[in-house]
Amino acid sequence: MYDLAKIRADFPILSRQVNGKPLVYLDNGASAQKPQVVIDAVTRGYAEEYANVHRGLHYLSNLATEKYESTRGTIARFLNAASEEEIVFTTGTTEGINLVSYAWAAPRLQPGDEIVLSVMEHHANIVPWHFLRERQGVVLKWVEVDGNGDLDPQAVIDAIGPRTKLVAVTQMSNVLGTVVDVAAICRGAREKGVPVLVDGSQSSVHMPVDVQAIGCDFYAITGHKLYGPSGSGAIWISRERQAEMRPFLGGGDMIREVTRDTVTWNDPPMKFEAGTPGIVQQIGLGVALDYLMGLGMANIAAHERSLRDYARDRLQGLNWLNVQGNSAGKGAIFSFTMQGAAHAHDISTILDKRGIAVRAGTHCAMPLMTHLGITASCRASFGLYNTVEEVDVLVSALELAHELFA
Amino acid sequence: MYDLAKIRADFPILSRQVNGKPLVYLDNGASAQKPQVVIDAVTRGYAEEYANVHRGLHYLSNLATEKYESTRGTIARFLNAASEEEIVFTTGTTEGINLVSYAWAAPRLQPGDEIVLSVMEHHANIVPWHFLRERQGVVLKWVEVDGNGDLDPQAVIDAIGPRTKLVAVTQMSNVLGTVVDVAAICRGAREKGVPVLVDGSQSSVHMPVDVQAIGCDFYAITGHKLYGPSGSGAIWISRERQAEMRPFLGGGDMIREVTRDTVTWNDPPMKFEAGTPGIVQQIGLGVALDYLMGLGMANIAAHERSLRDYARDRLQGLNWLNVQGNSAGKGAIFSFTMQGAAHAHDISTILDKRGIAVRAGTHCAMPLMTHLGITASCRASFGLYNTVEEVDVLVSALELAHELFA
Repeated sequence: MYDLAKIRADFPILSRQVNGKPLVYLDNGASAQKPQVVIDAVTRGYAEEYANVHRGLHYLSNLATEKYESTRGTIARFLNAASEEEIVFTTGTTEGINLVSYAWAAPRLQPGDEIVLSVMEHHANIVPWHFLRERQGVVLKWVEVDGNGDLDPQAVIDAIGPRTKLVAVTQMSNVLGTVVDVAAICRGAREKGVPVLVDGSQSSVHMPVDVQAIGCDFYAITGHKLYGPSGSGAIWISRERQAEMRPFLGGGDMIREVTRDTVTWNDPPMKFEAGTPGIVQQIGLGVALDYLMGLGMANIAAHERSLRDYARDRLQGLNWLNVQGNSAGKGAIFSFTMQGAAHAHDISTILDKRGIAVRAGTHCAMPLMTHLGITASCRASFGLYNTVEEVDVLVSALELAHELFA
Repeated sequence: MYDLAKIRADFPILSRQVNGKPLVYLDNGASAQKPQVVIDAVTRGYAEEYANVHRGLHYLSNLATEKYESTRGTIARFLNAASEEEIVFTTGTTEGINLVSYAWAAPRLQPGDEIVLSVMEHHANIVPWHFLRERQGVVLKWVEVDGNGDLDPQAVIDAIGPRTKLVAVTQMSNVLGTVVDVAAICRGAREKGVPVLVDGSQSSVHMPVDVQAIGCDFYAITGHKLYGPSGSGAIWISRERQAEMRPFLGGGDMIREVTRDTVTWNDPPMKFEAGTPGIVQQIGLGVALDYLMGLGMANIAAHERSLRDYARDRLQGLNWLNVQGNSAGKGAIFSFTMQGAAHAHDISTILDKRGIAVRAGTHCAMPLMTHLGITASCRASFGLYNTVEEVDVLVSALELAHELFA
């Protein structure tokens, strides 16, 4: 039983007004709001249970360490990882993918080696690879999406050549909502001996994830999109790949011994975590994931499918609206432009006056925007607490915007 | 007027008990507790004002962006930077120094080039340079401290040779409390044309800082030690050095344009900030720094000097206690070992039973521990809210530990 009214009451910000209207928060693709249990965990973390972790022996340090480290196990359960030692804490997917780029790819890839990407990747899964192109001559190979925004797994597998050293692909487009069959890609890539990095920044928020069933090598998540605190996150890395990685950030915790002339490393995952971590935000992320697992990721996915179907129907009724991406199994993310003069930014401003939060711009996906032949779009992205009534509010506001700009 | 009782009441955790005793928190060198205004700012940030920053145009995104970006100006004021564009947000000093290592030093330093360090650096200011030693043949040159734990600025300047490309030095030892005359080092280094990185992770907490008066090139701070949220921080970088740096982390915000074949960068400081940042914790850091500036850093320093003098006198009275570091102008940080059988960890455990939080171990400063000829120590580190009565509680507990282990 998915009790939407009760769930909405868990999120204090949803009861506020914006510009004199009830907040209709449809910017979940950028970041999600936080349930009270997460806010309480953060408050308690600072007001009652705070100390630095790992290196202390006193009561508060032990307490904070225990809570902080327990999030590692929670993330492992959330992703169905075989071991929590495969979970490396990060500040989010951007840091996670940069970790792979600097610690795994940079020391291994030679000039002419290739990385296969889809054209609908987020900049977080593009720019770290551009670094390798600029700095060491790595070649980026791009795989197209079709008119619906679908990515054919076989096209990705076919793009893998003898010089391909990595496939890096999103599981859900943050613009089109397309869900990618990453398990199929991983099967094909594995046959060719090529590791796969999955950007789970969007998908992990909206569907059950099982990294063992996917069969990938790296799976990155972002806490603030998962209804957790800003600056929280993790990347799952298989033991095989961990063993191939050198450290990334240097500092405390990741070392075993430091002398003037030498340095040796801690075991993974600590080898990849330097300095005082985001203690309280990672504790909050654990609470957020417990909240999500309490609701059930399959239930959240079912609710969001119903929102997607309703929104798709209603938006298709607006014949002056161009929705980018119409993959059958897409997530509840709608990027759109309006025929006529209205710029995406103008549309979002009009929606904002009605209390509706959407995003306008390139959504950190410029190669995709170029592929789509547009310079910017509006994006309404739904989360576990959104309602069909909010879809109606969105449609009414779009109709108003259309009238204003017609 | 430094109203200590009122100040202590600002920190909710200080009224709690540990092991049935009032908490005596003397682990400030590892991390500081948070005043209620910071906790409230974090709570409000999530419960009422949360959205992703920079790329939104709706009300909540604009509000969060305004608050987040205002912290940049607050940090600039706190450090007396000439411009807030010199402030790069980080997750703390560890990330800040790694940023300098990867983005400034790595592409510039050749095999045989040197970095000058003191032996009392924290691992955060050692390991990133060891990376350059291991990966590209950079040479680390170490400058000794004397028997009191003092670092002669002239010894650092004299260590600068024709191959020296950087001096990286702490302004305050996290073990000995030694305050380093970094301005003198910077004057000497500037005459030789060598940039200076100052690790301000400890010093910025305990004294007024003026990066223009110091004359350094890089100055790193850590938010969680500055009574701010975990995962907050910044590094001040002069415009001259910023102009020499390539990007470090790749992702959103730090780019201007991304195509399949090319990528161009945003202007500094954004060039060095990738992906969704630690929005709420940086907002909290701004509130923490305003709190500190409200008390007055000179007033905080004066209070801590009185704590240091009282603690130094009392600890000197314990002739079975060895205190490491006796620099005249040291901060209120006391590292010590006990004659006889007691291991640092055992001492800290006994203190913990009395509600006293101290740290035991190598304090992320293994080369210094080797220099001192010890394997571990206890460390009592004081903050703005500590009292002379707490020094007495510490001394009583140490006497008890001494009796137990005698």
